[in-house]
Amino acid sequence: MQYYDPKTLSFLLSKVHHLDELLKHERYAAYDKESIDLLLEAVKDFSDTSLFPYIKEMDEKPSVFKDGRVTVHEQFGPILKKAGEMGLVGAFMDEKDGGVQLPITVFNALYFIMEAANNHVTGYMGLTAGSANLIVTFGSEEIKKKFVPKMLDLQWGGTMCLTEPQAGSSLSDITSSAKDLGDGSFSIKGQKIFISASDHQFADNFIHLVLARLEGAPAGTKGVSLFAVPQYRVNDDGSLGDYNHVDVVGEFEKLGQRGYCTNHLAFGDSGESIGYLVGDANKGLNYMFQMMNEARIATGRMGAGIASAAYYASLQYAKERPQGRKLQSSGKKDPSEEQTLIINHPDVKRMLLHQKAIVEGSLSLVMQCAYYIDKQLTTESNEKNNYHLLAEILTPIAKTYPSEAGKDAVDTGLQVLGGYGYMMDFILQQYYRDIRIISIYEGTTGIQSLDLLGRKVTMMEGAAMKLLAKEIEKVIAAAMQHDQLSGYALSLGENAKLIETCMTHLLPYAMQGNHERYLADATIFMDLFSTVVIGWQWLKMGLAAMAEDTAFKESKLHTLDYFYKYEMSRCRGLQKTICHDSDVIVNVGVEVF
Amino acid sequence: MQYYDPKTLSFLLSKVHHLDELLKHERYAAYDKESIDLLLEAVKDFSDTSLFPYIKEMDEKPSVFKDGRVTVHEQFGPILKKAGEMGLVGAFMDEKDGGVQLPITVFNALYFIMEAANNHVTGYMGLTAGSANLIVTFGSEEIKKKFVPKMLDLQWGGTMCLTEPQAGSSLSDITSSAKDLGDGSFSIKGQKIFISASDHQFADNFIHLVLARLEGAPAGTKGVSLFAVPQYRVNDDGSLGDYNHVDVVGEFEKLGQRGYCTNHLAFGDSGESIGYLVGDANKGLNYMFQMMNEARIATGRMGAGIASAAYYASLQYAKERPQGRKLQSSGKKDPSEEQTLIINHPDVKRMLLHQKAIVEGSLSLVMQCAYYIDKQLTTESNEKNNYHLLAEILTPIAKTYPSEAGKDAVDTGLQVLGGYGYMMDFILQQYYRDIRIISIYEGTTGIQSLDLLGRKVTMMEGAAMKLLAKEIEKVIAAAMQHDQLSGYALSLGENAKLIETCMTHLLPYAMQGNHERYLADATIFMDLFSTVVIGWQWLKMGLAAMAEDTAFKESKLHTLDYFYKYEMSRCRGLQKTICHDSDVIVNVGVEVF
Repeated sequence: MQYYDPKTLSFLLSKVHHLDELLKHERYAAYDKESIDLLLEAVKDFSDTSLFPYIKEMDEKPSVFKDGRVTVHEQFGPILKKAGEMGLVGAFMDEKDGGVQLPITVFNALYFIMEAANNHVTGYMGLTAGSANLIVTFGSEEIKKKFVPKMLDLQWGGTMCLTEPQAGSSLSDITSSAKDLGDGSFSIKGQKIFISASDHQFADNFIHLVLARLEGAPAGTKGVSLFAVPQYRVNDDGSLGDYNHVDVVGEFEKLGQRGYCTNHLAFGDSGESIGYLVGDANKGLNYMFQMMNEARIATGRMGAGIASAAYYASLQYAKERPQGRKLQSSGKKDPSEEQTLIINHPDVKRMLLHQKAIVEGSLSLVMQCAYYIDKQLTTESNEKNNYHLLAEILTPIAKTYPSEAGKDAVDTGLQVLGGYGYMMDFILQQYYRDIRIISIYEGTTGIQSLDLLGRKVTMMEGAAMKLLAKEIEKVIAAAMQHDQLSGYALSLGENAKLIETCMTHLLPYAMQGNHERYLADATIFMDLFSTVVIGWQWLKMGLAAMAEDTAFKESKLHTLDYFYKYEMSRCRGLQKTICHDSDVIVNVGVEVF
Repeated sequence: MQYYDPKTLSFLLSKVHHLDELLKHERYAAYDKESIDLLLEAVKDFSDTSLFPYIKEMDEKPSVFKDGRVTVHEQFGPILKKAGEMGLVGAFMDEKDGGVQLPITVFNALYFIMEAANNHVTGYMGLTAGSANLIVTFGSEEIKKKFVPKMLDLQWGGTMCLTEPQAGSSLSDITSSAKDLGDGSFSIKGQKIFISASDHQFADNFIHLVLARLEGAPAGTKGVSLFAVPQYRVNDDGSLGDYNHVDVVGEFEKLGQRGYCTNHLAFGDSGESIGYLVGDANKGLNYMFQMMNEARIATGRMGAGIASAAYYASLQYAKERPQGRKLQSSGKKDPSEEQTLIINHPDVKRMLLHQKAIVEGSLSLVMQCAYYIDKQLTTESNEKNNYHLLAEILTPIAKTYPSEAGKDAVDTGLQVLGGYGYMMDFILQQYYRDIRIISIYEGTTGIQSLDLLGRKVTMMEGAAMKLLAKEIEKVIAAAMQHDQLSGYALSLGENAKLIETCMTHLLPYAMQGNHERYLADATIFMDLFSTVVIGWQWLKMGLAAMAEDTAFKESKLHTLDYFYKYEMSRCRGLQKTICHDSDVIVNVGVEVF
């Protein structure tokens, strides 16, 4: 049973993303390397015994919706109880708010382990943590006190309710309404779809964070407010009161992640749903973006986790399955020879390297984002905002690369098994289905790409871009000092320049007000940009690996070599596509299809 | 309800692949354009009414294995009956053998329609046709007469039994045995897995074509013979005799194509399984390759069919779903404006063009292969072998491109629907599962790539390569005459040269006896080669479209433009990967993973 590599995870934490340096800060004074190692070990144990053994069963016995209630796999009972007891939910939050101020990098490492073991589970925790954190950050003392402690124990669940049937990703079209009841509470009405983790038998209550419009609010996103709406009302003494008419009116049957329920909620339909304004009126979308940004990194991390599990599943098969023979120097095979294990076939090796390069590159990027958030939390100077900007520009990439390349990695893992990969008896087909949602959750790849090209690379006159370029240059300079790495450093420099070339080509469109044309190839730009970013992460890993033992170092350098030879080589073609003069996309009329 | 474009299909048949020219030959004297049009129309009607309406249900109510028998969806009853009556099964076969000598191009067009409508169905027909054709070509008069007519009526089914549990794709390791009973029959013993269409309630009998070893046969593929083994023995008067002990011992539960059963068969386990040698002893694999080559093209065609259906499903959604707004020249959106249909968003247009380029490019390549086979059948001169070689070199590509790029196209179609794409209510998730088998069936992508680079491009001192290069040059020369096409013609020429560059780099490895290294990047070579080949097909389509009405022409030229800008631009990077000096793949040891 292997679904991730503990040694690589520790290497990323300690050697690539400098946990020791973070731990020197007083925010993290309660931790040292030993206590972190114990935590990693504890979560691995929990995952080995309580999560991984149930991943296939949770797919085969998915959540069931009946009579207005959702019933999930019974193993969620002990899992959520234990996760609550272990303090895994709001561990990253401030001590004053009920957290334990765990470094964000470590928090992400722990969740990565759990997600690699069982990707159906962490959503129940992550959404609850995110909602609790949102209430803590922007909510009144009253609802903080009333709602948050039980959420952090996982006695109650938390959700984010954005999507509506008529609006989808277009949040300016939200029509759910909130009527001021004059006593500090609001009457909420509306339909919300695709609401994950919004009901199950192992929580007594759910706190839904709902985007809705106050009466008379301006049109568009500027008229959207955020409300905390409990499933059951909560009395002043903390006990549960009346049903708050948040009806589960249906469950979505999904292609994958079938143990993780996704529901349709109706607010204020069967009776009054009372909610509480979180923060100021009409600023709901800004607040929600705190949670969205966390959720985007978490989604990418989950993609990396699923791809990791698929990699190890296919690796195990490749190491055990004999089939075919190696080619002789005559170009023929000798049928009297014993069959070889398929891991010895070059194409199988290529498929395994492909997966490994994506899995570890993705994970390193997620950790990089987490590191910048940690630095933001532990830096007092004006550097603070720099780390914020670095996390901002990398977030859409940390969401997208692990989901898109991760999907490709899982597909490759399935292919390693040949016909067996397509059979329900083997788990690859499940990972193939599970990971397919990752590029849709929390803003599709198209939307992340618009965020990257339309907002992040240009914001504050390209300040985030410049900071990122500096970070990349630092790694290039360091790698130039090593003969084994200087070739990759040069390649990274050249490929990073292609991003500038694209911007030089595209920006004039934006300046002329032709924003559609500017953004038309945003998804291709994302592909290019994220490949360079992962190349940067691989070079960082290569650098850090120079000080490791030979076997570990060789493994990392070989995978780095694979990434540069097979993946970085795509960049020039992507740049050419982006810098093309013809308007293939914007000018195409519907009649062409 | 649209799952393919009849106009494009007719265009491919008539204008791109010159059906009129084929019909001049006496072999096809029974047909003219009108009768072919009627056939296309009849199969479209059949598909509209009997196939497409059941595609989702066949997934939701898959075949069931119980008490040693497989029960498939009840709609297969009327479907197989009608298909038999329409003569769809062996239509391509010679009249003397029970066929109607339909041109291979037309036969493929008809099957493409059916597969786009419902990819769970044609396997039952195609495998029966292929087995019947194998018996007709190599079998004795006796088994021809006994077995073939009822197969062509679909009263009986036919299968190909290659794979064994311990051997997988390594056919030299087949251990099924055949013992000569001295009366012209043989006793067959062995286990065969992944045997599709090998049992259902709508056929009275099944004729299995089984690879097995005669006693004392040489080791490896040179000791493999082919046998026809009925499920029930057949008396001399054609009536069914005793059970022949071909036991269905299990069914494989698959990720997709769940209406199309795939079983585990045991021969000679519960009693004697009598079989008949087809052709000469020890030549079974050669014979089977006739069927394999047909089946490989058919598999690619099925990939194109599924991708076509997914394209039209996502197109319909994009045309009906309002969401979001177009960007103003200010770069903002106006929330007071009505929502736009998502087909108006550039990224959605890009996703649709991507699908269209792959679907039509794939279909054109399948038709190109079929055309060369038609030419082979209708050419008496020494040109005949040239057409054979062209079909040979294109077959692994016609299998692989529609399966790999088709998978990507379906993935893109699912993404067009956003969250709904992941929901079981919509059909995209089914096509996503269905198409995943296509790159595994009939030799995985890895195996097709070894066939292309290891055999096809070098065979007869590169004769097939030279012929293909000439065909490509002809199209380039013709396109150079059109201002609108000359740019693409130049690009095709440049990209085609990259294949030569790769061969120049790789061949020395083979000459040094380092075949592993020569073939290590075969799959990347396939990616490059097939992209060039599809570029060639698109240029052919562009050329033929010059004579069409404006709307149709513009649609084709726009998609051609997309293909060259977004897909052909990948070739240089692929060539660079292949021409790299470092041995990333061959030298990687197991300890790296």
